[in-house]
Amino acid sequence: RINSDRLWDSIMEMAKIGPGIAGGNNRQTVTDEDGEGRHLFKRWCDAAGLEMGVDEMGTMFARREGTDPSLPPVYVGSHLDTQPTGGKYDGVLGVLGGLEVVRSLNDLGIKTRHPIVVTNWTNEEGARFAPAMMASGVFAGVLDQADVYQHVDKDGKKFGEELERIGWKGTEKVGDRKIHAFFELHIEQGPILEDEGIDIGVVTHGQGLKWLQVTLTGKEAHTGSTPMPKRRNAGLGMARVIELVHEIAMDYQPDAVGAVGHMQAYPNSRNIIAGRTVFTIDIRSPEKEVLDAMDGRIREGIDTICDALDIKYEIEQVGHFDPVTFDKNCVKAIRDAAERLGYSHRNIVSGAGHDACWINRVAPTAMVMCPCVDGLSHNEAEEISKEWASAGADVLFHAVVETAGI
Amino acid sequence: RINSDRLWDSIMEMAKIGPGIAGGNNRQTVTDEDGEGRHLFKRWCDAAGLEMGVDEMGTMFARREGTDPSLPPVYVGSHLDTQPTGGKYDGVLGVLGGLEVVRSLNDLGIKTRHPIVVTNWTNEEGARFAPAMMASGVFAGVLDQADVYQHVDKDGKKFGEELERIGWKGTEKVGDRKIHAFFELHIEQGPILEDEGIDIGVVTHGQGLKWLQVTLTGKEAHTGSTPMPKRRNAGLGMARVIELVHEIAMDYQPDAVGAVGHMQAYPNSRNIIAGRTVFTIDIRSPEKEVLDAMDGRIREGIDTICDALDIKYEIEQVGHFDPVTFDKNCVKAIRDAAERLGYSHRNIVSGAGHDACWINRVAPTAMVMCPCVDGLSHNEAEEISKEWASAGADVLFHAVVETAGI
Ligand SMILES: NC(=O)NCCC(=O)O
Ligand SMILES: NC(=O)NCCC(=O)O
Repeated sequence: RINSDRLWDSIMEMAKIGPGIAGGNNRQTVTDEDGEGRHLFKRWCDAAGLEMGVDEMGTMFARREGTDPSLPPVYVGSHLDTQPTGGKYDGVLGVLGGLEVVRSLNDLGIKTRHPIVVTNWTNEEGARFAPAMMASGVFAGVLDQADVYQHVDKDGKKFGEELERIGWKGTEKVGDRKIHAFFELHIEQGPILEDEGIDIGVVTHGQGLKWLQVTLTGKEAHTGSTPMPKRRNAGLGMARVIELVHEIAMDYQPDAVGAVGHMQAYPNSRNIIAGRTVFTIDIRSPEKEVLDAMDGRIREGIDTICDALDIKYEIEQVGHFDPVTFDKNCVKAIRDAAERLGYSHRNIVSGAGHDACWINRVAPTAMVMCPCVDGLSHNEAEEISKEWASAGADVLFHAVVETAGI
Repeated sequence: RINSDRLWDSIMEMAKIGPGIAGGNNRQTVTDEDGEGRHLFKRWCDAAGLEMGVDEMGTMFARREGTDPSLPPVYVGSHLDTQPTGGKYDGVLGVLGGLEVVRSLNDLGIKTRHPIVVTNWTNEEGARFAPAMMASGVFAGVLDQADVYQHVDKDGKKFGEELERIGWKGTEKVGDRKIHAFFELHIEQGPILEDEGIDIGVVTHGQGLKWLQVTLTGKEAHTGSTPMPKRRNAGLGMARVIELVHEIAMDYQPDAVGAVGHMQAYPNSRNIIAGRTVFTIDIRSPEKEVLDAMDGRIREGIDTICDALDIKYEIEQVGHFDPVTFDKNCVKAIRDAAERLGYSHRNIVSGAGHDACWINRVAPTAMVMCPCVDGLSHNEAEEISKEWASAGADVLFHAVVETAGI
């Protein structure tokens, strides 16, 4: 079993970097705080005798040599970046859980045949720069590196320039590594495990996702003196689309979810009818057909809404992944580990996207989940217990060692 | 008649200060640009031999002495501040139209019995700091000076401190001046005059207004992994309220208007269900009963919406004025002037709020309106013709001189 105090202390130490305003974290990708978190992680990796590689997307790869260095490594990790109002565990548990795996192997003096690489993927959250799981997406060949370098945050800063600015743009070509298997430990971010009192989620599938960024263009005009029939109100259009997305998600739930979390009106003045609104629709389903059907209904709905309001629209897909089926053998390694350790477990579908979803396209991959209080995530109040964290890390440890061979 | 070239040139000169991005202006109240605009206006006033007074709200009063200095002055003016994406004429025409009145009197060597004071009221727009017509509201005793000094913009800066910072916090006590009459020239900001091909709007009434700032509090949570029935979505709540306001305004139109132009979601991330939204409802009607009925229906509707979504709400009234009936004699002076000058005219109700609406409570007041292209205002593309501007200023000139006496 892993050292649960050490794991917990490391999580708490990392949480000091980029503190939020309500007990959580604001350590958004390629900010100064992200840079600081990376340095701390590197110091820990150095102390554990790992060798650090950094690729052109800034992803960190800390390698513990195997007895047969020619074999492709087993990868384990997640991400250290957070939402603007994020929790202390989302991503962090998976990276530091991976570190704890090698620290425990060091303690026990165990050598594995395959090398083990602990990974911190850049920009998993997609909060500052869309899309989410950006670096793992480039690694898996689904996203284009030159393209995502140009993506901008709300201040117009470019991802590639910010990565360079914080000093973590590595020289290694992205996606060149051969991966024997990839394991990611993550908090569930949903309520199922806690509700059922189960220790371990064996993640068999991941939901698919689409992010549609919509721009509505009406006409700025005076709210007091413009007659109602003369208005071309982009704010009203946005409100109707938000309702539409909700209705469609309700039609398909529990096999789908959907909402608009990002929204902006221009010029955003109390007495000006919004001339333009920009917002992002997030829809998800474990069924590709459902996701596609939702997408189709949303596009039709937007057309109808805009027609009625005499406003124009543009829709840009800024994020997309199909539903994922994780690797049978990797999934089995996790289930067997939970079984062997005596933890209660159940199969589960990941509601959120994860780096594992992309890596699954280029290497055998699976995920372990542990419960989180009230299913709450993407909230500074996100909470887990030390016991949940160490059960997850124990299962990760066994699955990794089993797969890496002794 | 006034000098229409000089009036137009002055408007174009002022428009160079705080240029917008699309041909209009961004010269929001108590910014550096506002300070610069004030200095230009002061230089023009000095050159015209006027004596400048500035009160504690930053309102500028440029006095041309009368033959009987003991008589209360006739005031004439409007405001030089703009929306963030404002036009070149909204407010400016009224201030520079007032200046043109005294410049023309100087040209003609005419002395009036009552002094004439050209006025630039601070923060008419209410864009940076609510409410609109702030300084005239304090002057009329409806708003509290100590209170509005504390009002903050989106960066948390206080009105009082910003006024001091730009160097235009005067020493004169606000509201101490005796006003014989107040006249304000303004563009219509609506489509009626242009549609009917009429030169002059004789403003008999002004619509009443309420600004309700609403804060909805739900729960931030992950958009992908939070089941639909578990959500407490403050973004969806805002969307429903925006629709509600529109529906209610449609029920009462053409005797009412309403919309939400200012809206903000927190934390405003693509994959976070909004935990909080803040937005401002703007409703207006020339009938007090209609305004009150709308207000009541909106509050009821918000309660129902929030109940269904399990979210909390707070409503703060951040702006309010009752419908206004302008002074019969002042209105008559404007109608007579239009008649005498041979301009076509009609009675009109102001859809927007104006400083004249507050001053009407403490002194006989009326307004002159001229058409604007397509009724468009609060838009950088706001446009008027030189002929419309000078017809309006001619009428202003005659009404002011008539009232000030020769
Ligand atoms: N795990 C997680 O929150 N990832 C961010 C991408 C997503 O929205 O699912
Ligand atoms: N005239 C004008 O646009 N005033 C701003 C206050 C309002 O919204 O009516």
